[in-house]
Amino acid sequence: MEVTRKNYKDCLNTVYSAIEEADFLAIDGEFSGISDGPNVSALTNGLDTPEERYTKLKKHSMDFLLFQFGLCTFKYDQAKSKYITKPFNFYIFPKPFNRTSPDIKFICQSSSIDFLASQGFDFNKVFCHGIPYLNQEEEAQLREQTEERRNQHANGVGTPSFISPSSSKGSSHVPEEHKDFINKVVEKVEALLEKLHLTQTFPCLCSDALAWFPKGLHVETVETEKKERYIQISKVDEEERKRREQQKLEKEQEELNDAVGFSRVIHAISKSGKLVVGHNMLLDVMHTIHQFYCPLPEDLQDFKEVTMCVFPRLLDTKLMASTQPFKELITNTSLAELEKQLKENPFKSPQVETAEGFPSYDTAQEQLHEAGYDAYITGLCFIAMANYLGSFLTPPKAYISARSKLIEPFFNKLFLMRIIDIPYLNITGPDLQPKRDHVLYVTFPKEWKTSDLYQLFSAFGNIQVSWIDDTSAFVSLSQTDQVQIAMNTSRYAESYKIQTYAEYIQGKQQEKEKQTTKTWGEDSWVKPHYTCSTTSGFGYSRYSCHECLTCWVFFSHVKNVHLSCAGAESTPKLFEVPEVW
Amino acid sequence: MEVTRKNYKDCLNTVYSAIEEADFLAIDGEFSGISDGPNVSALTNGLDTPEERYTKLKKHSMDFLLFQFGLCTFKYDQAKSKYITKPFNFYIFPKPFNRTSPDIKFICQSSSIDFLASQGFDFNKVFCHGIPYLNQEEEAQLREQTEERRNQHANGVGTPSFISPSSSKGSSHVPEEHKDFINKVVEKVEALLEKLHLTQTFPCLCSDALAWFPKGLHVETVETEKKERYIQISKVDEEERKRREQQKLEKEQEELNDAVGFSRVIHAISKSGKLVVGHNMLLDVMHTIHQFYCPLPEDLQDFKEVTMCVFPRLLDTKLMASTQPFKELITNTSLAELEKQLKENPFKSPQVETAEGFPSYDTAQEQLHEAGYDAYITGLCFIAMANYLGSFLTPPKAYISARSKLIEPFFNKLFLMRIIDIPYLNITGPDLQPKRDHVLYVTFPKEWKTSDLYQLFSAFGNIQVSWIDDTSAFVSLSQTDQVQIAMNTSRYAESYKIQTYAEYIQGKQQEKEKQTTKTWGEDSWVKPHYTCSTTSGFGYSRYSCHECLTCWVFFSHVKNVHLSCAGAESTPKLFEVPEVW
Repeated sequence: MEVTRKNYKDCLNTVYSAIEEADFLAIDGEFSGISDGPNVSALTNGLDTPEERYTKLKKHSMDFLLFQFGLCTFKYDQAKSKYITKPFNFYIFPKPFNRTSPDIKFICQSSSIDFLASQGFDFNKVFCHGIPYLNQEEEAQLREQTEERRNQHANGVGTPSFISPSSSKGSSHVPEEHKDFINKVVEKVEALLEKLHLTQTFPCLCSDALAWFPKGLHVETVETEKKERYIQISKVDEEERKRREQQKLEKEQEELNDAVGFSRVIHAISKSGKLVVGHNMLLDVMHTIHQFYCPLPEDLQDFKEVTMCVFPRLLDTKLMASTQPFKELITNTSLAELEKQLKENPFKSPQVETAEGFPSYDTAQEQLHEAGYDAYITGLCFIAMANYLGSFLTPPKAYISARSKLIEPFFNKLFLMRIIDIPYLNITGPDLQPKRDHVLYVTFPKEWKTSDLYQLFSAFGNIQVSWIDDTSAFVSLSQTDQVQIAMNTSRYAESYKIQTYAEYIQGKQQEKEKQTTKTWGEDSWVKPHYTCSTTSGFGYSRYSCHECLTCWVFFSHVKNVHLSCAGAESTPKLFEVPEVW
Repeated sequence: MEVTRKNYKDCLNTVYSAIEEADFLAIDGEFSGISDGPNVSALTNGLDTPEERYTKLKKHSMDFLLFQFGLCTFKYDQAKSKYITKPFNFYIFPKPFNRTSPDIKFICQSSSIDFLASQGFDFNKVFCHGIPYLNQEEEAQLREQTEERRNQHANGVGTPSFISPSSSKGSSHVPEEHKDFINKVVEKVEALLEKLHLTQTFPCLCSDALAWFPKGLHVETVETEKKERYIQISKVDEEERKRREQQKLEKEQEELNDAVGFSRVIHAISKSGKLVVGHNMLLDVMHTIHQFYCPLPEDLQDFKEVTMCVFPRLLDTKLMASTQPFKELITNTSLAELEKQLKENPFKSPQVETAEGFPSYDTAQEQLHEAGYDAYITGLCFIAMANYLGSFLTPPKAYISARSKLIEPFFNKLFLMRIIDIPYLNITGPDLQPKRDHVLYVTFPKEWKTSDLYQLFSAFGNIQVSWIDDTSAFVSLSQTDQVQIAMNTSRYAESYKIQTYAEYIQGKQQEKEKQTTKTWGEDSWVKPHYTCSTTSGFGYSRYSCHECLTCWVFFSHVKNVHLSCAGAESTPKLFEVPEVW
């Protein structure tokens, strides 16, 4: 179902009840770009730490706009033995609520826009009919302003129809050069009042000028379709005036709800506490929080906490497909390819049916990169993989619910693109800390190319180069004992410099501490804090072997035993064997 | 005529000949936003110097995209006694030329986008079908790359169909992990070659891998509509191979011209040396140069020089309408209002006719903020005002050509929005330097409002406040001799600080000098220089009284004499009385 500003209000209850009844939700976002600075290989360095990756994405991705949001709800119908889906495709645009509300600026990246254009994306639906939104602070501010006006009204203070333009300092005074004009308008109104009951419009005046008008008037700002603004002045008796003022306040309240707009859908998803499935969803989660809740925190740990408040249960199908037992069976984890492979043996196409009144997607038509469609097939992928896990049970089960313990090991682990040795960001616990003692941090003149690095390390056989920027890269050696040799040979080098990975991390840490001290020194600095409005009741923390999230099956009732985790760094901790088994 | 990527090539000759035959051109641009930082009142402070205004616009406006460009050509038809117009409305988008070409990021401002949406702007035409462009440096780089490949080809070096991705440092090496895959593809190709003449496609490989393939092959990259890229390998004999390579180079050449795209229209306008008319055109000129020629220079003087190279003759109808003899007759100089007023007495609606094959605009329908329409009515305004000047001649003339000396005083003076005492930026000479010795520069705590300033200066009668930012403003006193009193009283003030305007300017100067010295110290700093490819033959420089650009008529044959310039600061310098009179 396509949802724009035009039909948004009519759809809202349908969206709410779809979320309420669902077993799980799938989401996807389309953005106006990916990186405003580094190219993709620098943005996703193979040896980023989770902190570095988060910091880079926050810095270089968040000024783009999430302008299409796909939500597909999945509800299992026991009688039909199939999922009933309700797909929604929302168009989002930060239409300013009024002339004093924040005027959002966002970046567009030509290649991303061009890519979406080639997929048939409708930009007019975004820019002309996109649903507005407010983050929590903006919403609170607006509600406060409205409340203030309501109180003024109750106390009988004249209520100009303007929201006081608090951001524009010059407004609380009538400029000298306008006084003549205002006096003329006031005179004209007074003269007319003598003779008639009428409504008259004038070019817009600043709000302070309204105080100059005689009593017994209802004053209202009207805006034409062409964005020309007028003040409409009507002569009314006291009762009628009060009725109109009341009407105006009610209208304002409704407009305020409209301004919160799409954020209400995200609030509903959040409150439901339902499992939210996405494919390679880190950026989707970051954008959603950034746009509809609050600016992203500096610190990764704080981000994890906010994420748990907004989305208490997440599952990333790209991470799931990259982990045992799927890893060996799936060669390409891109969404489109994954969806195709999960139709083939040993997997089974999930049984789904689109709910009545919803246009149904046809996977043969591949409407990829429409957020609603992508959310839909992400859900299909999840179902196919979840059901596959059921085949390991004794007796095997064809349907595994979104609430099954079998799926829990995949919860709240978001796929990390292109990091060699850390497959996911662990939202509910500390991240994996792989040893990187075979890695060197090399700095060199900006003329150097990859071939220069291969040349430099030619004595060491196979190496792997991960570019950081123009003048630095990580070089992974194949054997750890080569590190000392490389360090020794480089001691007298002038054109380049080598550090061990440990030295590099230490240096970064020290730099960060220096900055933090400095920041604390400034008076205006306040540590951001977040309050969790939805409690998940889901506060377990458990470590899994990162090679194989499902290595817990090692200890359980299943037939197929996966042993590769034996030598892994972190010991998997077993949860209780669930009763349902 | 609407021009997008689809019909651009077919239209180009029509555009060229319309420019060539025209008496003058009118232009207009629509942008994705205006200010990425300060609000409008801070961006356009009433007491900005021209340097300050230029610096602010450069800093806060140039990251937006000029995405619709209106050009309307006007050719006077003697026989019909009317202008024949050819209006064009171009949609512009920086579609990346290939995967290694610059991936432009631009900002969108919600309020601007929302405004254009309310005017019926078609964003799909921009983002899906916009004409690409390159600035001069990008074009030179691309031509160089193509030339290099052409030479390699001539020297018999194998020419992979890729443009070498020089920006991606990692590309000049086949990654270890891909070698197996490439070897398999090569083996497969070799096996197939044994048996058949055929064309075969493979998933895309990096360009270095191409060298691994056996001779006697034509290798080509193909991209599907869905942006999937493949390598197509065909077995061909030597002659056929050469023919195909030649074809490929020609295609590349054509693609390169396509990539220069809309910039070719701007080059044609520039080369023509024709009078270019715009309304409030400073931002149009800045964006046009920035997008299609070169990044804007730091220094205002350098900007003026570049502007004279690109647009040797400019005329701003907003400035013209704000100057004598129009100033007294025209109350509102916004484009829409101006157009309406110039239909009324004492002005005359210009006689115009749309050229055959061009859709004609109807001014009664007001398609405002479509760049083509705005350019069209800007041209109408210019004609009406120019012809009005003819009424002062003895005998009066009904038609004044775009080449008439009567118009020259208005050349190359671009309207400066909202500056109290400097009406225009003088592109061909030094700017006006009004005395500001009644102006104070006041700094204060950020809680202060305009009313606090009125309070502070209440003893001095009328004052005018121009906000700079949260903690500073200019305060203009009504009498210069009050300045010393204000300075004296403020000496012991703690919460605020007052400087005279002269002190403020001196401080800024010193700061700038400090920065310049610092910048010169850095090795990498190179002063930008611009070469002028079109000479205007128009190198006069002449000062006019800024109160009244037309005060030159004081000395000429006209009936109506305007005397207000008598007391003005700069003496008007008279040009020779033209022979045509």
